[in-house]
Amino acid sequence: MNIIYYKYIKASMKALGIKEAFLFVIKRITLEVLTLIYLDNAATSFPKPDIVYEAIMDAMREYGANPGRSGHKLALKAGRAIYETRELLAAFFNIEDPMRIIFTPNATDGLNLGIKGLLKPGDHVITTSMEHNSVLRPLKALEKIGVKTTIVQCDEEGSVDTRDIEEAINQNTKLILTTHASNVTGTIFPIKAIGDIAKKHKLVYMVDAAQTAGVYPIDVANMNIDILAFPGHKSLLGPQGTGGIYIREGIEIGNIKEGGTGSKSDSLIQPEIYPDKLESGTPNMPGIVGLGAGLKYIVDRGIEDIREHERKLTKIFIDGLKEIKDVKIYGPCDVDKQAPVVSINIGEEDSSEVSYILDQVFDIAVRPGLHCAPLAHKTIGCYEQGCVRFSIGPFNTVKDIETALEAVNSISREI
Amino acid sequence: MNIIYYKYIKASMKALGIKEAFLFVIKRITLEVLTLIYLDNAATSFPKPDIVYEAIMDAMREYGANPGRSGHKLALKAGRAIYETRELLAAFFNIEDPMRIIFTPNATDGLNLGIKGLLKPGDHVITTSMEHNSVLRPLKALEKIGVKTTIVQCDEEGSVDTRDIEEAINQNTKLILTTHASNVTGTIFPIKAIGDIAKKHKLVYMVDAAQTAGVYPIDVANMNIDILAFPGHKSLLGPQGTGGIYIREGIEIGNIKEGGTGSKSDSLIQPEIYPDKLESGTPNMPGIVGLGAGLKYIVDRGIEDIREHERKLTKIFIDGLKEIKDVKIYGPCDVDKQAPVVSINIGEEDSSEVSYILDQVFDIAVRPGLHCAPLAHKTIGCYEQGCVRFSIGPFNTVKDIETALEAVNSISREI
Repeated sequence: MNIIYYKYIKASMKALGIKEAFLFVIKRITLEVLTLIYLDNAATSFPKPDIVYEAIMDAMREYGANPGRSGHKLALKAGRAIYETRELLAAFFNIEDPMRIIFTPNATDGLNLGIKGLLKPGDHVITTSMEHNSVLRPLKALEKIGVKTTIVQCDEEGSVDTRDIEEAINQNTKLILTTHASNVTGTIFPIKAIGDIAKKHKLVYMVDAAQTAGVYPIDVANMNIDILAFPGHKSLLGPQGTGGIYIREGIEIGNIKEGGTGSKSDSLIQPEIYPDKLESGTPNMPGIVGLGAGLKYIVDRGIEDIREHERKLTKIFIDGLKEIKDVKIYGPCDVDKQAPVVSINIGEEDSSEVSYILDQVFDIAVRPGLHCAPLAHKTIGCYEQGCVRFSIGPFNTVKDIETALEAVNSISREI
Repeated sequence: MNIIYYKYIKASMKALGIKEAFLFVIKRITLEVLTLIYLDNAATSFPKPDIVYEAIMDAMREYGANPGRSGHKLALKAGRAIYETRELLAAFFNIEDPMRIIFTPNATDGLNLGIKGLLKPGDHVITTSMEHNSVLRPLKALEKIGVKTTIVQCDEEGSVDTRDIEEAINQNTKLILTTHASNVTGTIFPIKAIGDIAKKHKLVYMVDAAQTAGVYPIDVANMNIDILAFPGHKSLLGPQGTGGIYIREGIEIGNIKEGGTGSKSDSLIQPEIYPDKLESGTPNMPGIVGLGAGLKYIVDRGIEDIREHERKLTKIFIDGLKEIKDVKIYGPCDVDKQAPVVSINIGEEDSSEVSYILDQVFDIAVRPGLHCAPLAHKTIGCYEQGCVRFSIGPFNTVKDIETALEAVNSISREI
């Protein structure tokens, strides 16, 4: 453990000075338990509501059978439980037909399915410089088969000008694909306005709701969203291993995988019926049940209540950060314009170093680096340095935010 | 609930006669709880060992962060937990480099990755008539891009003649792809011998271990297996939502998806390093931890102990079935030649009807129909009727098997 203590000492001395560092190390050695403050909810929300854990355990212990294959009581119960989550999601996103929701292990899988299932050689797609690698890397890969991509440049706050999107449309354009909110700056995109543009030009609009689904209202009908990809394990408060994609009826999506569906088992051809066409193999039944429980929690507590809570904390955090010397805040710095994600740097300090100190000295969990979104970092001007991302969840408290502000202040003073 | 009672009455009358049916319905109405006998372990094993549930709950509640992305304590702990499962799997299958194991949500996903990542237009693949739709449907889909498939016909017991495989090799053959054991008849394939043929002809050998991984020894080095796809939620005793694929170093596998990997985040090109190249997006961390716990259970109890237990029960079941009038048993009827999967029919009775009675009247969970393997049913001669599959797991008891035999006997007498 010596190397660990050495790192503590090094980090602590840097952030706190020698005396505090000594006391800190003593505390560590005596194994005093510190309470961790989790501000990495944009990666995955933690903790989940208790009912999520309970629902998963119940599904595994009481009816952990394979849904949709056999006809026995446990299999039917498992199948019904999955369908219940499908219905909850449909109601939540105003999706008419729950069977148009495909469960995937995460949003990345859904995005790949939507992108690769839709685009063919010669097609043109419009996206933005604030997208995650789960959008940009599949598009980059499709360049090899002749899919063309226009990446619309966003401004330094991460905002897109919808006129730039409309201007990028050409006769081969098939798809507009944007995030709902940046995973780096939180910047909220005007998806309703973009959906209107897509509709006007008869294009498919696909939204990556990784940072919003569960906290910000999404109405696929009203917003003209044709394809919606969402993770289950972020603001929808389900477990890791869950996510999904909604595909509007009439949109043709090819398979990227085939397999057993429990339906039309006599045929070697994948069935065309949804969701079977795009859902092969044993699903993550307990995970999907947990996602349903997360949704129930959101509906019971109220999506507005969660959003207002996170907005309040985000505002306190931004306002506090503005008072701290040498802190550069990226993004809109305005809770009306951003999801509860705040990225900063402290002077010229490496974002990984700052995050390491936050973790080791202050027990605050954040994420440094490029957040799998290199063009976003180029857009906001921190590609070399990366940045330190704080992301707030429904179970954070004002005290968490105050402690985080004190920690940033300490680091800023000592560095 | 009237329709349910009606179905009970109908099923019970058929199987038990009027008096017993009446008593049975009375029992149901008074809500007497019957103990379910689960014999659908080939779909998913149930229950799991307690340590699996406990490990998943611990992972979710104590360190439910996103592994491999951030550097904070919880993220590192999550990352280490996933790596531990990778190491356990590598040791279990005699895989030299744990990083060549890619986690997938089920075996189907792994099979699709292996098949589509490997095969190109003009390539020829040899497979068998006993394969699952998770093999046959992707191959069928690849016909459209010019991949040719030879389906080697197995005999009525579901056995393959390795000479037929070798004879099917032509100059374009790239891959031999077989199951390790049929999900319909349990018939065990001589994978070592097939691996030797593949090696001799410098072909890739891919094995679908859906029915064997966790119970039958698999040594990828010794058996010349280049690609091994396995589910986590069957005999490896992990939760649903888990599985994986091993890819031998030197085998070129293209991506079927790209996305965030937490590595080389500055690049829009998917990294080439394993497992990142083929693992994008947030993994099912608690599920993978649960899979690790399942493996630990197997290693602690001993794979031989589990196998012998299941073989013993399978032998009792087969021997008992042979004594029952009008029962047709498919497959080898020999525990030395089959995994603990036994499929039957009773006279000309529809397999769904028999399964329904087993479930509703006797509380025995089995699976009827074609089991997502239509060519297997053609091979063994029950394509029209389907069959009733009993699949035995490590927690079944002799009493379970005796009760199942009594139930089959009752149905056989009454039908």
